[in-house]
Amino acid sequence: QVPGLTKRFSQGILERLESGEVVIGDGSFLITLEKRGYVKAGRWTPEAVVEHPNAVRQLHMEFLRAGSNVMQTFTFSASEDNMESKWEDINAAACDLAREVAGKGDALVAGGICQTSVYQHHKDEARIKKIFRLQLEVFARKNVDFVIAEYFEHAEEAVWAVEVLKEAGKPVAATMCIGPEGDMHDVTPGECAVKLVMAGASIVGVNCRFGPRISLKTMKLMKEGLQAAGLKAHLMVQSLGFHTPDCGKGGFVDLPEYPFGLEPRVATRWDIQKYAREAYDLGVRYIGGCCGFEPYHIRAIAEELAPERGFLPPASEKHGNWGCGLDMHTKPWIRARARREHWENLLPASGRPFCPSLSKPDA
Amino acid sequence: QVPGLTKRFSQGILERLESGEVVIGDGSFLITLEKRGYVKAGRWTPEAVVEHPNAVRQLHMEFLRAGSNVMQTFTFSASEDNMESKWEDINAAACDLAREVAGKGDALVAGGICQTSVYQHHKDEARIKKIFRLQLEVFARKNVDFVIAEYFEHAEEAVWAVEVLKEAGKPVAATMCIGPEGDMHDVTPGECAVKLVMAGASIVGVNCRFGPRISLKTMKLMKEGLQAAGLKAHLMVQSLGFHTPDCGKGGFVDLPEYPFGLEPRVATRWDIQKYAREAYDLGVRYIGGCCGFEPYHIRAIAEELAPERGFLPPASEKHGNWGCGLDMHTKPWIRARARREHWENLLPASGRPFCPSLSKPDA
Amino acid sequence: QVPGLTKRFSQGILERLESGEVVIGDGSFLITLEKRGYVKAGRWTPEAVVEHPNAVRQLHMEFLRAGSNVMQTFTFSASEDNMESKWEDINAAACDLAREVAGKGDALVAGGICQTSVYQHHKDEARIKKIFRLQLEVFARKNVDFVIAEYFEHAEEAVWAVEVLKEAGKPVAATMCIGPEGDMHDVTPGECAVKLVMAGASIVGVNCRFGPRISLKTMKLMKEGLQAAGLKAHLMVQSLGFHTPDCGKGGFVDLPEYPFGLEPRVATRWDIQKYAREAYDLGVRYIGGCCGFEPYHIRAIAEELAPERGFLPPASEKHGNWGCGLDMHTKPWIRARARREHWENLLPASGRPFCPSLSKPDA
Amino acid sequence: QVPGLTKRFSQGILERLESGEVVIGDGSFLITLEKRGYVKAGRWTPEAVVEHPNAVRQLHMEFLRAGSNVMQTFTFSASEDNMESKWEDINAAACDLAREVAGKGDALVAGGICQTSVYQHHKDEARIKKIFRLQLEVFARKNVDFVIAEYFEHAEEAVWAVEVLKEAGKPVAATMCIGPEGDMHDVTPGECAVKLVMAGASIVGVNCRFGPRISLKTMKLMKEGLQAAGLKAHLMVQSLGFHTPDCGKGGFVDLPEYPFGLEPRVATRWDIQKYAREAYDLGVRYIGGCCGFEPYHIRAIAEELAPERGFLPPASEKHGNWGCGLDMHTKPWIRARARREHWENLLPASGRPFCPSLSKPDA
Repeated sequence: QVPGLTKRFSQGILERLESGEVVIGDGSFLITLEKRGYVKAGRWTPEAVVEHPNAVRQLHMEFLRAGSNVMQTFTFSASEDNMESKWEDINAAACDLAREVAGKGDALVAGGICQTSVYQHHKDEARIKKIFRLQLEVFARKNVDFVIAEYFEHAEEAVWAVEVLKEAGKPVAATMCIGPEGDMHDVTPGECAVKLVMAGASIVGVNCRFGPRISLKTMKLMKEGLQAAGLKAHLMVQSLGFHTPDCGKGGFVDLPEYPFGLEPRVATRWDIQKYAREAYDLGVRYIGGCCGFEPYHIRAIAEELAPERGFLPPASEKHGNWGCGLDMHTKPWIRARARREHWENLLPASGRPFCPSLSKPDA
Repeated sequence: QVPGLTKRFSQGILERLESGEVVIGDGSFLITLEKRGYVKAGRWTPEAVVEHPNAVRQLHMEFLRAGSNVMQTFTFSASEDNMESKWEDINAAACDLAREVAGKGDALVAGGICQTSVYQHHKDEARIKKIFRLQLEVFARKNVDFVIAEYFEHAEEAVWAVEVLKEAGKPVAATMCIGPEGDMHDVTPGECAVKLVMAGASIVGVNCRFGPRISLKTMKLMKEGLQAAGLKAHLMVQSLGFHTPDCGKGGFVDLPEYPFGLEPRVATRWDIQKYAREAYDLGVRYIGGCCGFEPYHIRAIAEELAPERGFLPPASEKHGNWGCGLDMHTKPWIRARARREHWENLLPASGRPFCPSLSKPDA
Repeated sequence: QVPGLTKRFSQGILERLESGEVVIGDGSFLITLEKRGYVKAGRWTPEAVVEHPNAVRQLHMEFLRAGSNVMQTFTFSASEDNMESKWEDINAAACDLAREVAGKGDALVAGGICQTSVYQHHKDEARIKKIFRLQLEVFARKNVDFVIAEYFEHAEEAVWAVEVLKEAGKPVAATMCIGPEGDMHDVTPGECAVKLVMAGASIVGVNCRFGPRISLKTMKLMKEGLQAAGLKAHLMVQSLGFHTPDCGKGGFVDLPEYPFGLEPRVATRWDIQKYAREAYDLGVRYIGGCCGFEPYHIRAIAEELAPERGFLPPASEKHGNWGCGLDMHTKPWIRARARREHWENLLPASGRPFCPSLSKPDA
Repeated sequence: QVPGLTKRFSQGILERLESGEVVIGDGSFLITLEKRGYVKAGRWTPEAVVEHPNAVRQLHMEFLRAGSNVMQTFTFSASEDNMESKWEDINAAACDLAREVAGKGDALVAGGICQTSVYQHHKDEARIKKIFRLQLEVFARKNVDFVIAEYFEHAEEAVWAVEVLKEAGKPVAATMCIGPEGDMHDVTPGECAVKLVMAGASIVGVNCRFGPRISLKTMKLMKEGLQAAGLKAHLMVQSLGFHTPDCGKGGFVDLPEYPFGLEPRVATRWDIQKYAREAYDLGVRYIGGCCGFEPYHIRAIAEELAPERGFLPPASEKHGNWGCGLDMHTKPWIRARARREHWENLLPASGRPFCPSLSKPDA
């Protein structure tokens, strides 16, 4: 058990959200483990769960310490191609790993399913739902605490996912990887949110593809859509840890920097504190990250919202609020950075005068 | 043992370098573990070795898999303040951890000492050498493979460090944290290199404080200084993983972004391949990194120099050369990035149009 | 008479546009004469017409040589404050100056009126129309070739202007200083265009406040609005010579750089060739500029559209197409710039690494 | 006569400088008249003097009103190719024009000669001096007030020029188009200055090729060189009106933006006030500009140094100090720009997020 954390065993995701609690999600697995040497870009699959369980366990631990209340299983995304023998074992092992770490702190285990590669070519509801159901069976068997349908480009397929996930009798969250322009069939964010809630999702929002600023813009539209329809649901945001003011409807994958040149776009912890505050002010209570969101970004959410939550995460033992850890530095000009004004107003330089500040998306 | 690696037990650091082999160093511990939640910025101390050994072991493992041939002990830097009871146990534990991981692959263990906080105020050779000697005793007892004097701003103190380290009878490497303008007393890089070699260092170079480009500029001056003096030594570079074209003599600590806003400056893997190639072409054969150098940056060195070395590191199982892992992507414009030309010519955007590209150093 | 130009005395503005001819407007007077020392920023009044007629005549001549087919009178904007004795003489002198220069080439004289300062506080149609009528009387007396209502933020006031201008029996053009978001009362560009045409304008479009790219975006919306309403009118665009991707609804005056720090935003001649081509392709046939549009920018319009028009402007005697004047340079790398590819693909650097690429508008 | 200016007929250039007066040079003719449509880039010749005398006269007038104390003749540069019949008439006409305008205010007439194209291939002193002498004869006949040898890349050729110019018995100024790295034969700025003074120049400095910041760096080296040699001379700087932090030894002509994409590099008036102040503080008393220096840049010099000089130039009637002309604007956020703090601290955005901030020089 991580010291300083009280496990509230009886509290499920909905009880937490309904009581007004802030739930902090986790961050980036694929992109982060790629940089650590355990995931192959392009394929983006989670065999590391069985090949290098320590590496995956360690990343879960880092997010837990940073304040995450959710350990999402590091499982295979649905596809008929990779739905062969081995994926089931890996996904089961991923559930065990997530549960093991969740048990050391105040976190729930969530199983997640994503859009299929089938949908693009065959909008075959039965075939796609079968893929979802296969994955759900493992989550049900391993008794995850709740389930997430995430990374959907089309509202229609996301609705199918929610319908399948509902079958397990667990709370269902659903997030789409869309921006303010809506899904690939031009369903607006507001309409997407309405469809997902109507299909049975208790929590709706966005994940991946767009940076903090744009993700919150989309959340605002989802919230307004739900309000206009007289619907209620919990809101959830898991943005990229990258700034993407220049991406189009397809999001960051269309930028020429994706996935091996995104470094200059990585958000600072201060950017993420701003994101957390704005998400909170918008009424979003499930706040986490996606690709590019490192453990210290999650800690930034927990620190920004510590006044509301009443506590700091374990990893804040190793972090001074607003840079205050610098206050004993021997150089006075570095000591002078030990204050909120410095970091809040910093316009960090790229160190790359020969590079532009925006790119034109491919595609 | 990491599969695919042959351990050459008999080969010490000097045998390797003398045979013309490329030795790949490791990367960032303090900055990287700060982001993972285990090190506190400002204090920058390594208690994680005993508090969270899995986190430290995991990072060693990542560097080993990425191709590092050196596991540097994650030990306390010298200072009279922290030279109390506990540091000795931590440093001993750090040696054990480094040795444990080194034993799983083809890596040596190196113990390192840094400049003292004493020197700034009291240039007291005896007092400072005593501090160095205390640290060296642990390394000697734990029988590290070689020792490194690193992060010295003053050639004089670095020379004292080398003189102490020589007492252990192990090969000595010495690096200074200086740029092309030389040390804080205006000793040029060439003169610094000469002094260190004269004092007994077999390997000399620079580490930290400056990015790849500037570090190599300094290395060139060191090399020329040695040549002019008719001296021979192995060359070693461990640059930052950050671009710092705008920093002054004091290096990156004087930039307003240090240490919590450096994200936009992080080097891409392609930047590091360039750095590895240029270091190699300059005759540097011990090539590694310092703050900001993540495991994938080390892998980039190993991949760039794979033709010369004849093998790839274990982590390259999870990495396609020059982005080739993207060649099966469903979107043709992403597939089009699966080639060297794309990444080699990419001018990555910051995604921050309201930020400048350079900063003025404080101080 | 400027050599090489055939004066077509009988051709009015509408005959030209109706025959499919491209009419090239003129460019910046206030901002340009401010830099030359004859206009005071803030006040932005045209006394130079009588104080320094040579300076004004010279600028007219430069635009004529660059290809302008319209000499717009450099006259007082309407306001009750400055509608005292002297303005009438100045405006009359401005008409004479414009006519004098127009007579040296193939250009028409246009008198222009702008929005009043009254409208903001008192939407008093009669009072405002009186101001317009006073100005129109001078233009009528001096027999300008056509009249322009320009720089209107509100469609309502622009309509009043058109209604007054129609009284003179001359062709009326009307442009608003709005962007794609529409006028200050949220009348869309499409609706604005419809209102102006319904009020009697034969030519409609936008001028000032926004750069080339955004101005054309607004023009597209105007065109679509007219099409949807089944209306026909000639289209006219006179954008800024500054890039303003970051400005809000209020346009460039809200940028912190306005009006004394706009230099890095000045369009290149190549940017303007692109603007001319895109305007033409959109169906705009009256193409000119506003603040920041220097004579060489007007020449760039004339050169880009020379294939369609069949001739070059007089000032092209002093300009090689696409930089070809460099083809005899002694340095081979400068000679290599004597080609379209170089200039068309150039991403010109700001030379200001400490400055951002975008600003946040004030207000 | 320009009102408000007292002509001091008896005061030559040396009397002025010796009395400690600041002499303000003029600015850009070639680049500025290119944009106005009267000079062809590449060839860069001054036929406009006879073809369009009003255009040239007008530019002289603008500089005079802006505060220039020197009207430099807009004459042909030396070359054997263009030393045919017509150049002599043009140069004579240029002298008349300069004199005519100088007579309207407090300005002297200066005739200038530049480096020859011969020198590059044939370092033939006699042949080159002959070219210089031919030009000087016109200046002598027209009785200019002093002569300038300018735009020399090689100290040797500049010395020859000074030697010829001395023959006329008029004060000689000499400027080189070099940066801190020195001339093309690696003669340092300090050595260049010494050679020019030894050859007889009373005023030495730099012009063209580099922006304000770098030009002043070179001036500092010239000053130090003269001091070290125990020589005294008046200092003169005529920098570009463009920022060029990224150019190499060859200066701005080697930048890919030269000459048709330099817009984003144009200095603001505030940049030039800083330049004037720094030049003054360095002891430079002849301060002007070269390519890219528009009339308002010259006015910025005159305004910055008005406290020292005791008067403002005529064109300041049309300019409020530090933006104060905005203090009556109806929008409060624009009024808020009517103060020194705003403009002095402004970091003007390029409006070009897809462009870099620096370029790599060709060559």
